[in-house]
Amino acid sequence: MMEHNLQHTISLLTRTPAALNALLRDLPETWTFRNEGENTWSAFDVLGHLIHGERTDWMPRAKLVLKFGETKTFESFDRRGHVREIQDKSLAQLLDEFARLRLENLDELRALNLRREDLERRGRHPALGVVTLSELLATWAAHDLTHLHQISRVMAHQYREGVGPWSAYLGVLQCAGHSASS
Amino acid sequence: MMEHNLQHTISLLTRTPAALNALLRDLPETWTFRNEGENTWSAFDVLGHLIHGERTDWMPRAKLVLKFGETKTFESFDRRGHVREIQDKSLAQLLDEFARLRLENLDELRALNLRREDLERRGRHPALGVVTLSELLATWAAHDLTHLHQISRVMAHQYREGVGPWSAYLGVLQCAGHSASS
Repeated sequence: MMEHNLQHTISLLTRTPAALNALLRDLPETWTFRNEGENTWSAFDVLGHLIHGERTDWMPRAKLVLKFGETKTFESFDRRGHVREIQDKSLAQLLDEFARLRLENLDELRALNLRREDLERRGRHPALGVVTLSELLATWAAHDLTHLHQISRVMAHQYREGVGPWSAYLGVLQCAGHSASS
Repeated sequence: MMEHNLQHTISLLTRTPAALNALLRDLPETWTFRNEGENTWSAFDVLGHLIHGERTDWMPRAKLVLKFGETKTFESFDRRGHVREIQDKSLAQLLDEFARLRLENLDELRALNLRREDLERRGRHPALGVVTLSELLATWAAHDLTHLHQISRVMAHQYREGVGPWSAYLGVLQCAGHSASS
């Protein structure tokens, strides 16, 4: 397992919007608007959640750590914040918005010129307590992956019946769904 | 849940190579060459497996169903078949090869002009017994998703320590890994 490496984190964060764009744009809506049942998310909902994170979670928290350290607790992340992000939007609009916000945030992150000692700075999470800037940035990348993992699962679920007996062989259909948020 | 729909299947199958390309090309090798431990696969290995499937699994089996129905059993899929696909190859070469083979296979699939009654035709799987062409094609799409799900998990695993206490909130890190093959 590798330690957190800022350049590796940025490499991944840079690619996620393009990967989701390549996977989802212009796909039939039966793939992108269906979920796994009541109170679960579709790929469309997940995009709204990623957008909400770009606005309110990662960079705002990073700047709070750099400015106030442990003395100011992060605002709680709103798990329902995606609802207003997706209202009256098309999937194409969400993909564009996510790409634009991510680009802006990564420009801002790079401009901070963070050094190793900056990454060790500590902040305070409302539930988890003391966390480091390094952990926050690593989580930003892993959070992209948790939602790519979720989108794959939600989409595969739509073919649960369609695959017939092969369902026993498809790992994604055995996944219980353990997605949570930051 | 939706029934299997050939156009929806083709829409998804068309996008997977571009999605993997956008996610993986030129990523630092610490993301793409590391796995989850002994006898597990890296993203690089998974690409080799997808290539092997394009060569030996989906279209060869589809053509066998159309030609021989239940009278000829599919050849067993070689779960170690990726080993020779990845030998002496770069990640970029595997991405190119997967895209090329997928394109060829989808051209061939479209050229079959399958009708509803063709999709109901039956073949024989060496372990699962009687399966339909519809189930085989739905599985081709769901198999892409199972491996996108796996790649997300394998990559997130590399940051298991890096995310610190956030690991409790990241669904992908709770996933036990249940990937299997077709």
